[in-house]
Amino acid sequence: MAPDDTIEIPEPENQELLQDLSEKGNTAELVEMFEELPTMDVAEFMEEKPIEEVIEFLHKLDIEDQGRIFSDFSQTIQLKLFHALDRRSFAEVFAHMFSDIRADLYQELSKEEQIELLPYLNKKVREDVLILSAYPPETAGGIMTTDFATIFADMSAAEALEKIRKDAPSKEMIYYIYVVDHSMVMKGLVTLKDLVLHNPKDKVLEMLNEFFVYAEVNEDRESVAQKIEKYDLVAIPVLNSLNQLVGVVSHEEAIDIIRAEQAEDFEKFGGIMTSPNDDEYLQTSSFHHFKKRVVWVVSLAAIGIISGMIISAYQGILESFIILAMYMPMMAATGGNTGSQAATVIIRSLSLGEIHDEDWPRIIFKEVKISLMLSITVAILTYLKIAFLSYHALLPTGFSMGYIAFTISLAIAIQVITSAIIGAGLPLIVRRMGGDPAVVASPAISTVVDITGLLIYFSVASYTFGIS
Amino acid sequence: MAPDDTIEIPEPENQELLQDLSEKGNTAELVEMFEELPTMDVAEFMEEKPIEEVIEFLHKLDIEDQGRIFSDFSQTIQLKLFHALDRRSFAEVFAHMFSDIRADLYQELSKEEQIELLPYLNKKVREDVLILSAYPPETAGGIMTTDFATIFADMSAAEALEKIRKDAPSKEMIYYIYVVDHSMVMKGLVTLKDLVLHNPKDKVLEMLNEFFVYAEVNEDRESVAQKIEKYDLVAIPVLNSLNQLVGVVSHEEAIDIIRAEQAEDFEKFGGIMTSPNDDEYLQTSSFHHFKKRVVWVVSLAAIGIISGMIISAYQGILESFIILAMYMPMMAATGGNTGSQAATVIIRSLSLGEIHDEDWPRIIFKEVKISLMLSITVAILTYLKIAFLSYHALLPTGFSMGYIAFTISLAIAIQVITSAIIGAGLPLIVRRMGGDPAVVASPAISTVVDITGLLIYFSVASYTFGIS
Repeated sequence: MAPDDTIEIPEPENQELLQDLSEKGNTAELVEMFEELPTMDVAEFMEEKPIEEVIEFLHKLDIEDQGRIFSDFSQTIQLKLFHALDRRSFAEVFAHMFSDIRADLYQELSKEEQIELLPYLNKKVREDVLILSAYPPETAGGIMTTDFATIFADMSAAEALEKIRKDAPSKEMIYYIYVVDHSMVMKGLVTLKDLVLHNPKDKVLEMLNEFFVYAEVNEDRESVAQKIEKYDLVAIPVLNSLNQLVGVVSHEEAIDIIRAEQAEDFEKFGGIMTSPNDDEYLQTSSFHHFKKRVVWVVSLAAIGIISGMIISAYQGILESFIILAMYMPMMAATGGNTGSQAATVIIRSLSLGEIHDEDWPRIIFKEVKISLMLSITVAILTYLKIAFLSYHALLPTGFSMGYIAFTISLAIAIQVITSAIIGAGLPLIVRRMGGDPAVVASPAISTVVDITGLLIYFSVASYTFGIS
Repeated sequence: MAPDDTIEIPEPENQELLQDLSEKGNTAELVEMFEELPTMDVAEFMEEKPIEEVIEFLHKLDIEDQGRIFSDFSQTIQLKLFHALDRRSFAEVFAHMFSDIRADLYQELSKEEQIELLPYLNKKVREDVLILSAYPPETAGGIMTTDFATIFADMSAAEALEKIRKDAPSKEMIYYIYVVDHSMVMKGLVTLKDLVLHNPKDKVLEMLNEFFVYAEVNEDRESVAQKIEKYDLVAIPVLNSLNQLVGVVSHEEAIDIIRAEQAEDFEKFGGIMTSPNDDEYLQTSSFHHFKKRVVWVVSLAAIGIISGMIISAYQGILESFIILAMYMPMMAATGGNTGSQAATVIIRSLSLGEIHDEDWPRIIFKEVKISLMLSITVAILTYLKIAFLSYHALLPTGFSMGYIAFTISLAIAIQVITSAIIGAGLPLIVRRMGGDPAVVASPAISTVVDITGLLIYFSVASYTFGIS
């Protein structure tokens, strides 16, 4: 038997397969594939179709499959379907969605739409949606789902499996089974594997994991994601202040949060103000983008004027040694670059937990060593460039090109080391004061080392040339 | 019953609990806690102790628990234990580690140490380690584990559960059960839930998911992580070219990869060269850090000289209007800032999949709108600043301060728009050419817009002043 004809081909091929069946009008097989293929592939296929066709497709499926596929649609399509369907049909699909995605969708509806929808929902769904919508989106409560399975500690493994069989709707993730008392106070958890591998007569109490990791309902979602990551969890239970089990956050949410958190650091470092409710790039209005950028642009422009004042103060020396003006932008570029590099490495290492703010003496010492090597490299190249290639420049009597080259190279060497210390130091200081080190934006570092760079440059020049 | 006394307290408290038992010398209870508490907490507690004490602790536990806890140690501690234990004792723990972590550790040993260890391993472990170590670390093969459970399609649910009960060692994650033929060719998968919820007499074939998502053994690990994320998988099977099941990559790996990938983008954007084998900040030698930074520093310093040449070319106009020199650093800072901001937003949105390179006309149009608002804001502030606060500056006859202010503001407005287009355009161009947009480093953008900024500044000034 040749292996290549024995396996079904997943992924991009799945889109083609669906497209193919759809073009041939082979509806029976198409519907069968909707049931069999990974949900995300089916959802992506449907999203490309006109909304009427999507409705037609959905109606051919049983309600559980509808809820599953609907949950994987983008929110834009979900909202379109809300508007295209009558309230009663929508309410039916809505009842079979994943509870966390359902609550997110509900919050996107207008107040009037919410009020229109509620009477069509049964009591259980209505309560679930309203409770989940009440938690702030940046907390465990705001991202949790209520699709989980519970059992009691005094059940036998067989009884527990029987309860799960009866309770568990198809959408539920039952890797962990939560053990609660009759007031939903959580006593521990067992894995489905524990239940299956134990003797059916064994009591749940005997296999109970009492020392489980949990999240509090008001806990910051970043902390929830970190627990999932640290303890390699598939899902984490969420408890309220009475230790009642109110929800579960799954590993997919952790991935989303970690992505969002790192993207936020990246934006902050690039000089963009972020907020947890930011939309996608093209969906965000230009004015909103403007607001996220303008504060940094204006502040740094204002600070940039200080550099101008320094230049104007050293006008005299600049007029005598116009060659100094030629190397000013290089000073600024080199300083900005080494400062940004140092800040990047420190922010990244802090966020990955590789270094901690109490390590600062070792970090600064290391940055001094690294920047010393960089400064020697850059200084030598600068010296060679000036001493041997700038032979045509006019100089005041008594100054050799070698002397000028030495002066400029020395200034650049000092600038490189200073910039690395500033670039590494600022994020460490912000962290120590309890802030997010990524707020030390790269453009801000460039602007600061522009100023220190000019001061170093002109001080060194005044000193070695003996004038000011 | 008061809820607060009914629940065991996890996490930082776990460390205290262990510390407390250890100080009291209550070994029996300590060992019990080692068995019950989350593995990571136990590992973290032990890591703080002297290596002899760790060995003593481990010896009190059964070999399965030893392997589990050992796997959660940092690699530094794992290597210390390798050197502290005799080969035979080490081999025993080694055999009970998670297979992916075990292979990583094996690769950290020197060739001699590997050869010393191999004779103590049984055939199965030896083969497993050697095979897993053979895959490149950036591929699915390099990150997969061989701890997975398999069944055959013609088994009944009851027979399948029986096989799992017999085969599955405690460390195995059996959320998905893989269905293979007798040559290990993968036919599909079932979840443990499927097996449990079906009638025990139902055949595995009836519940088989044939259209499963899989990774190829040579597939890039980023692509593997993306599949896990997209399809919300707990684990993904890894197949070789014969469609044989050779391993499994779990969701924890996906989180690690996504973190590493984003950290890499962050570093690239900050002007750091990255490689997949980079160590932690403090573990990396200063010289290695230097090598990761020097290319950008030297290249940008060289490019910075172009700016110097432009200044020297416009020496004449600068000498007549020394006020122009005062606003040069502000031009550079503002351009660098708007350019970096635009690049940051575009790189982030590309990496989150919010925009695609074929959207470029809409993106550039949007950036023009945003930068138009920014440029008007900055230009107005600059005009007011110059026209009303620079009254003391000397001007050549025939030029009013208002006229100068208008000129500088106009130049800055053009600079802001140009910089935004450059900052947004460069990552899009790199992406279109198949590269990683994050290589367009923020310091590089600053250096480029320094040059365009000076050209704009002096062109506008020459034109409005009618001189050059």
